[in-house]
Amino acid sequence: MANESWISHYSPSNDFSLANIPFGIISTPEDQTLRPAIAIGGFALDLKTWLAIVNKEKLADVFSGVDIDQLDHALSQPTLNGFAALGRPVHRIVRKGLQDLLRKDTPYAELLRDDENARTKTLSRLSDVMMHLPMEIGDYTDFYAGYHHAYAVGVMFRGPENALQPNYTHLPVGYHGRASSIVVDGTPIRRPVGQILLDPKAEPKQPVTGPTRKLDIELELGCFISKPNKMGESVDVKQAEEYIFGYVLLNDWSARDIQAWEYVPLGPFNGKNFGTTISAWVVLADALEPFKVKTEIDNKTELQEYLKGEEDKTVFDIKLEVDLTTADGSTTTIGRTSSKYLMWSFPQMIAHHTLGGCSMRPGDLLGSGTISGPGGVEERGSLLEMTENGKKEVLLAGMNARTFLKDGDSITLRGFCADDGKGVRVGFGRCSGTIYGGPQR
Amino acid sequence: MANESWISHYSPSNDFSLANIPFGIISTPEDQTLRPAIAIGGFALDLKTWLAIVNKEKLADVFSGVDIDQLDHALSQPTLNGFAALGRPVHRIVRKGLQDLLRKDTPYAELLRDDENARTKTLSRLSDVMMHLPMEIGDYTDFYAGYHHAYAVGVMFRGPENALQPNYTHLPVGYHGRASSIVVDGTPIRRPVGQILLDPKAEPKQPVTGPTRKLDIELELGCFISKPNKMGESVDVKQAEEYIFGYVLLNDWSARDIQAWEYVPLGPFNGKNFGTTISAWVVLADALEPFKVKTEIDNKTELQEYLKGEEDKTVFDIKLEVDLTTADGSTTTIGRTSSKYLMWSFPQMIAHHTLGGCSMRPGDLLGSGTISGPGGVEERGSLLEMTENGKKEVLLAGMNARTFLKDGDSITLRGFCADDGKGVRVGFGRCSGTIYGGPQR
Repeated sequence: MANESWISHYSPSNDFSLANIPFGIISTPEDQTLRPAIAIGGFALDLKTWLAIVNKEKLADVFSGVDIDQLDHALSQPTLNGFAALGRPVHRIVRKGLQDLLRKDTPYAELLRDDENARTKTLSRLSDVMMHLPMEIGDYTDFYAGYHHAYAVGVMFRGPENALQPNYTHLPVGYHGRASSIVVDGTPIRRPVGQILLDPKAEPKQPVTGPTRKLDIELELGCFISKPNKMGESVDVKQAEEYIFGYVLLNDWSARDIQAWEYVPLGPFNGKNFGTTISAWVVLADALEPFKVKTEIDNKTELQEYLKGEEDKTVFDIKLEVDLTTADGSTTTIGRTSSKYLMWSFPQMIAHHTLGGCSMRPGDLLGSGTISGPGGVEERGSLLEMTENGKKEVLLAGMNARTFLKDGDSITLRGFCADDGKGVRVGFGRCSGTIYGGPQR
Repeated sequence: MANESWISHYSPSNDFSLANIPFGIISTPEDQTLRPAIAIGGFALDLKTWLAIVNKEKLADVFSGVDIDQLDHALSQPTLNGFAALGRPVHRIVRKGLQDLLRKDTPYAELLRDDENARTKTLSRLSDVMMHLPMEIGDYTDFYAGYHHAYAVGVMFRGPENALQPNYTHLPVGYHGRASSIVVDGTPIRRPVGQILLDPKAEPKQPVTGPTRKLDIELELGCFISKPNKMGESVDVKQAEEYIFGYVLLNDWSARDIQAWEYVPLGPFNGKNFGTTISAWVVLADALEPFKVKTEIDNKTELQEYLKGEEDKTVFDIKLEVDLTTADGSTTTIGRTSSKYLMWSFPQMIAHHTLGGCSMRPGDLLGSGTISGPGGVEERGSLLEMTENGKKEVLLAGMNARTFLKDGDSITLRGFCADDGKGVRVGFGRCSGTIYGGPQR
């Protein structure tokens, strides 16, 4: 019965199963206050409201070992930063307590299942809640750990001999991204204007200014930091799991023509900073733990000591999908891959990021870099790869085809882990955005 | 008399003259609350405390046209973000009001000059106050607008023919920096550990991990944003001045060996993110307005429309100095230059940054990039240039010499504008930090 919930219409094959219990920030038409919630089946459970009405002594049973006043305070905030900062042992207890509250044979039936007033006040259909950015994001760093993506892009621009830069297998390459333009699932994305070289081979090089002609996606996994480290202090790779709050899907929208002209020598800038979309529900690190696998990428380079962990299983086997929906409403799944193709784990990224003493704060976001599989165009996480930088078309349903995105196109990323033997599924929901052209809306 | 103040020991040749009125965040031994203040001569005036004790109706005279409750609220915060967000017209009125309050022939004598109780409660010697980060910094962007620096570094690595990348004269090149490790004047900086190629020419390339051997400085001007723009909306270069709150000195500490190994293809990362120091007092945009000049850099490239402003004078002639103090206490001024050698203005940087719709928020920080003059080693803003990447030594007082920084070295940046004819000086105070090795302190 551990797999069954009393929530109406619940099925263990939901993205938001009992095995998941992801956290997000909601508001409702009746109450515009931004507040923490979890998703269960097709419903959101409003944690702030529930904590306010439930008997505090009984809560001490549900979340045994947790300071209830501290938890109540953290879960009354308009972001999850306070909850994240309570640390992974607390997240573990709270998730377990909520699983017990929501399973069919709950020992805490009077706290929600059998209390109609509490149910009415705290449970809303997911279609009735507005989702907001789950965290206040201090800094956003984007890595480049998707080996097949880095290799394919390298071949495209430098040939197979020099596809990977010499540093690639020695350290998790990354760059600082823009935090202000990170938005939640569903936010429209304006096609950016930028400087573009229409003819990169002409001399002297003469850019024009206009809307990007090469608007692309990047299929990534995002990781939120919970525990801070002091400036000057590095995080040991073996301890780094304790600094992770949870994961989201991430689409690092990219304007390839703007990027190509601007990025030497200091890296991507306006080609990326016009928008980054994340999924709304943060899947806690513990919910993904059962789906850890050994990375599929065999890095033969002898690693520096600070990157050597103790674990054999360091990445997740999250099945990932990219759907493209055109303005006429027809949808095509244009990419399918898995996060097991990441060469570097998030603990390795954290150890590298903090090696020189860079401080991390609760709510900081790390992107994995684009994830692609080893196979053909159908396993790629960017249109750049699928179309060989616009040379080939991706065929879509409804007699459509694309090299890069058109106005009106929507991209939806999906991801889930499944243990079919146990009928368990942990999913991320969607990470989507629709492109529009012209002035700001 | 407009140049004279009743503040004790005041001289118009102070950095913090009546012509300046810079804003900062202080605390005192008696009151650990972080709160806004201005600097005047050798004193800090605690604005939060002063606003709390002064007659509100009289304030309406001093700051005519400003909503006093709003101002009171903004100046009760632990950062200047709220004050910055009130916008440049309000900053202008408040600065003028404070100048009137502090000048010798003040019309508001009873509000401070002649009220001993108010003076005792609100005025502290600068040596008695602790300074804190003036703003909560959402995003930090570092540009590369110092022409002579970019050229000299380009010559060093690519020769004079290819010194500047083709994009350099078409757009203000920049990259996203790390906001979490920005610290205020006086904060010690730990020598970062990182991956380094000891022999860059050996094949295969084999890095080691250890403390940087090429710890450097970057002399920069920092610019704080006041007014936000919405995501998807660009800021017109002709309006961009209205988005600027004020300026600080900025030292973008750099580990050149870590940077050299990591930065291709995504830009600087651990070579920079271990620490960035800013001066504590924000000099308002209006205080620098009289010192605007035409840039010394003659960019012959026809600019894109969005970078063309109406003004002829776009940069400031701020005299800049770099002092190096060794552990034995001897100080040498190793560099002297001016911010008039910036090729791009901050309004141009803002117009470019927002061109694709990237949102800016109050408190965002823009760095100018390293500023160097056209002359010899004595006009350079980095040791990389002064020593030709460690090939030559900079001679110091006390029989010392340096290629890069040693543990125990302190760097102090200073900057000021002066109109000697009028006896007016607007200065930044100091931007300093001392290097230490070993574990985090």
